Amino acid sequence: VTEPVPTDATSDTQPRVDLLSLAERVVLPDEDARIAGEARQSVLTKPSGALGRLEDLSLWLCSVQGTCPPRAFERARVVVFAGDHGVARTAATSAYPPEVTAQMVLNFLSGGAAVNVLARHNGATVRVVDISVDADYEALGATVPDDVVRDRVRRGSGSIDREDALTRDEAERAFAVGLRIAEEEVDAGADLLIPGDMGIGNTTPAAVLVGLLVGIDPASVVGRGTGIDDATWMRKTAAVRDAMRRGRPLKGDPIGLLAAVGGADIAAMTGFLIGGAARRTPVLLDGVVSAAAALVAHRIAFRSREWWQAGHRSTEPAQQAALERLALAPIVDYGLRLGEGTGALVALPVLSAAGATLREMATFDEAGVSDRPA
Amino acid sequence: VTEPVPTDATSDTQPRVDLLSLAERVVLPDEDARIAGEARQSVLTKPSGALGRLEDLSLWLCSVQGTCPPRAFERARVVVFAGDHGVARTAATSAYPPEVTAQMVLNFLSGGAAVNVLARHNGATVRVVDISVDADYEALGATVPDDVVRDRVRRGSGSIDREDALTRDEAERAFAVGLRIAEEEVDAGADLLIPGDMGIGNTTPAAVLVGLLVGIDPASVVGRGTGIDDATWMRKTAAVRDAMRRGRPLKGDPIGLLAAVGGADIAAMTGFLIGGAARRTPVLLDGVVSAAAALVAHRIAFRSREWWQAGHRSTEPAQQAALERLALAPIVDYGLRLGEGTGALVALPVLSAAGATLREMATFDEAGVSDRPA
Repeated sequence: VTEPVPTDATSDTQPRVDLLSLAERVVLPDEDARIAGEARQSVLTKPSGALGRLEDLSLWLCSVQGTCPPRAFERARVVVFAGDHGVARTAATSAYPPEVTAQMVLNFLSGGAAVNVLARHNGATVRVVDISVDADYEALGATVPDDVVRDRVRRGSGSIDREDALTRDEAERAFAVGLRIAEEEVDAGADLLIPGDMGIGNTTPAAVLVGLLVGIDPASVVGRGTGIDDATWMRKTAAVRDAMRRGRPLKGDPIGLLAAVGGADIAAMTGFLIGGAARRTPVLLDGVVSAAAALVAHRIAFRSREWWQAGHRSTEPAQQAALERLALAPIVDYGLRLGEGTGALVALPVLSAAGATLREMATFDEAGVSDRPA
Repeated sequence: VTEPVPTDATSDTQPRVDLLSLAERVVLPDEDARIAGEARQSVLTKPSGALGRLEDLSLWLCSVQGTCPPRAFERARVVVFAGDHGVARTAATSAYPPEVTAQMVLNFLSGGAAVNVLARHNGATVRVVDISVDADYEALGATVPDDVVRDRVRRGSGSIDREDALTRDEAERAFAVGLRIAEEEVDAGADLLIPGDMGIGNTTPAAVLVGLLVGIDPASVVGRGTGIDDATWMRKTAAVRDAMRRGRPLKGDPIGLLAAVGGADIAAMTGFLIGGAARRTPVLLDGVVSAAAALVAHRIAFRSREWWQAGHRSTEPAQQAALERLALAPIVDYGLRLGEGTGALVALPVLSAAGATLREMATFDEAGVSDRPA
C-alpha cells in the first residue's frame, strides 16, 4: 500500500487505476493531533467553547495537518476542471450557450473571473485544467498554455440522457488525471486543495449522480443552475430522469457510473478528491459539481471524507442532498450558485481564522488571566 | 445641523448632547451609488445573482461608501469598550470573577486575545477603551497607556438589579465619549468601525435592554453568557427581571435607560454606533452587547441602522431578538459567544470579498464572454 498509484494518463497506454489499493492508501487523519488541539483550546484566554464552530474547525486542521497548533496555509490551491457537456446542446438544459465554457477558461487565464478575484483576496492561487472543453482555442484566436490543455480527454462529454458521457477508458484516464494533478499539487507544496468547476451544463450530470447515489427523484435534485426558466427546468428534469434510468444499473461501479452519466470533469474531480486525501492534504469542497464528485469518491474510498470540509451551501438542491449524505456541514451559506471554487474561497478565511486562534491566542497562564474558580 | 456635536466629555464641565440634532446628522446612505452597483453587478462575468448575498453586501458597500465600485477597507478598526458591572459581583451572574475584565484589558494590550489574533489575520487593528473597569492597574503592577484609561467614567457600573448603573451625568459623559471616539477614528482614516466589548457581567444589562426594547420576558433574553450553570442562570434571570422592572418607565428616555439599567460601556458603544453613522462610516456589529447598544442607538437615530451590518449570530437569545427587531441578518453563524468584536472580525473577510468581486471582476464585454441569448 505504500507504492505510488499508477497515473500514466498522459501516455498513450491505457491507464489502470486499482481502486482497492487506492482506497487503502487513504488513512484517517491524526487523532493524537486532534486531542492535543482540544487540550490547547481549553487553556486559551476565552471561556471554553466560546469560539463555537471555529474550535471544531481548528481541531480538524490539527488532525489533517497532523500537528498542534495548526500551521497557516502557505499554498491554498484551486484547480478548476473545465469541460463541456453534450446534454447542454442536445437538451438545452442551460441558460447560457456552450461556447461560454471556453470563453470562461480564457477569462480565468486572464484573471477576471470571480474565482480569480476571490483567490487573490484570500491568499489562494488558481490552476485551470481543460479536461473536456469542446473548443478549438486556435480557431478562437486565443493562445492557451500547454499545461492547461495537455490533459484534455475529449472535446465535450456525451449527452447523458441518450448516450454515455465517456468510454470506460476515457473515464479511467480522466480519473487518473485528477489523481495525478492532486499529487503534482501536493508535491509542489499545496497544503489545501479546492476543486473548482466550469462547464455549461455541468449541473445536469451532477444532479444525476446525486439522485442515484442519495436515492432521490429527479425533481428533487434539479435546481436552477445558472438561472434557468421553467421550460428549461422541465427539459433538464426530463434529461436527468432519462440519465438516471441509464445510470441506475451502474451504482456499484463508480468508474462505470462516471462514464455513463458523469463526464470527464467530474471523473477528474473524483480522482482529485481522493488524491488529496491519499496525500493527507485537506480539501475544501465547493458547489454541486464537487459535491457529486465527493459522493462518488466516497464510494471508492470512504475515509477520504475525513479530509474534506464543505465550503458552502449552494442553492442547488442536489448539493444540499449530497452534503447531508456525507454529513458535511457547509461553512458559509450565501446563496451562491456560481461554481468555479468561489464558495470554498469565501469559506477559506473562516478556516484560516480557526487555525489562527488556536495557534496564536495566549493561554490563561501566559496572560495571567484567572480561569473560572474551581 | 452642520455644526459639530459637543463632545467635551473629558473636560470637567457637564457635557450636553442634543439627541435631536444628532439624529438629524445621520442621513441615509447613497442610493445613487447603490444603483450604480446594481448596474455593474449585471454585466460582470457570472450569471445574474449567482454571488447571492455577496451581491447584496457589495451594493450596501457602494451605498455606505458613496461610490461604485466600493473601495477595499484600508483601516478597519475595532474599539473594545471595557467596563465592569456591579451585578456580576452582587448577584454573581457570571461564570468568571470580575477581576478578569482588567486582566483581559492587559491581554488585549499585549496582543494575546482572540480579538487581537482575528484582527491581525483579517487586516484590522484594535483600540481598547477602559470606560468603567473596576481596577487599579498600578496596584496590579501593570502599566496601561494613558489613552486607554483617560476616558474612564467610573470604576464599575452599579448593580442594575437594585440601583442605577450610572448617574444621568455619567451616562451622558459615557455616551459622549463613544461619539467622540467614533469621530476620532474616522478622522484618523477608519473606513469600517467594529464595536467590541469586554466586561464580566455585561450580558446582563444587554439582556435587560433588549428585553425592554423588544418587549419580551426575562427568561427569553437570558443566555448562558460565558457558560453559566443552571443556578447562575436562575440568579441572572432574577436580576434581569428586577432590572427590567426598574427600567420599564424609562423606555422613552434612551439616556435615562442607559443610566438606570445599562452601564458606561453600553452607553459609550451607543454613542459610538451613532457617531459612525453620523460620519457616514459603515459599522459591523458584534454580539449581544453591541446589539443592545444598537437597539438604543436606533431609538435615538433610526437612520443609523442603514449604516450597520450584523457581523454574526451569537448564541445569546437577546442578540437574536435584537437583530430581528432591527431586521439585520447576521453574516456568519458559528455559535460564537466571546464578544470582544470577534464575531464581526470573522465576518469581515466576507464583506471584503463582496466588495472585491464588484470592484475587480471582468465584465462580459471586457472578457469577450457571451451573455445569455436574448
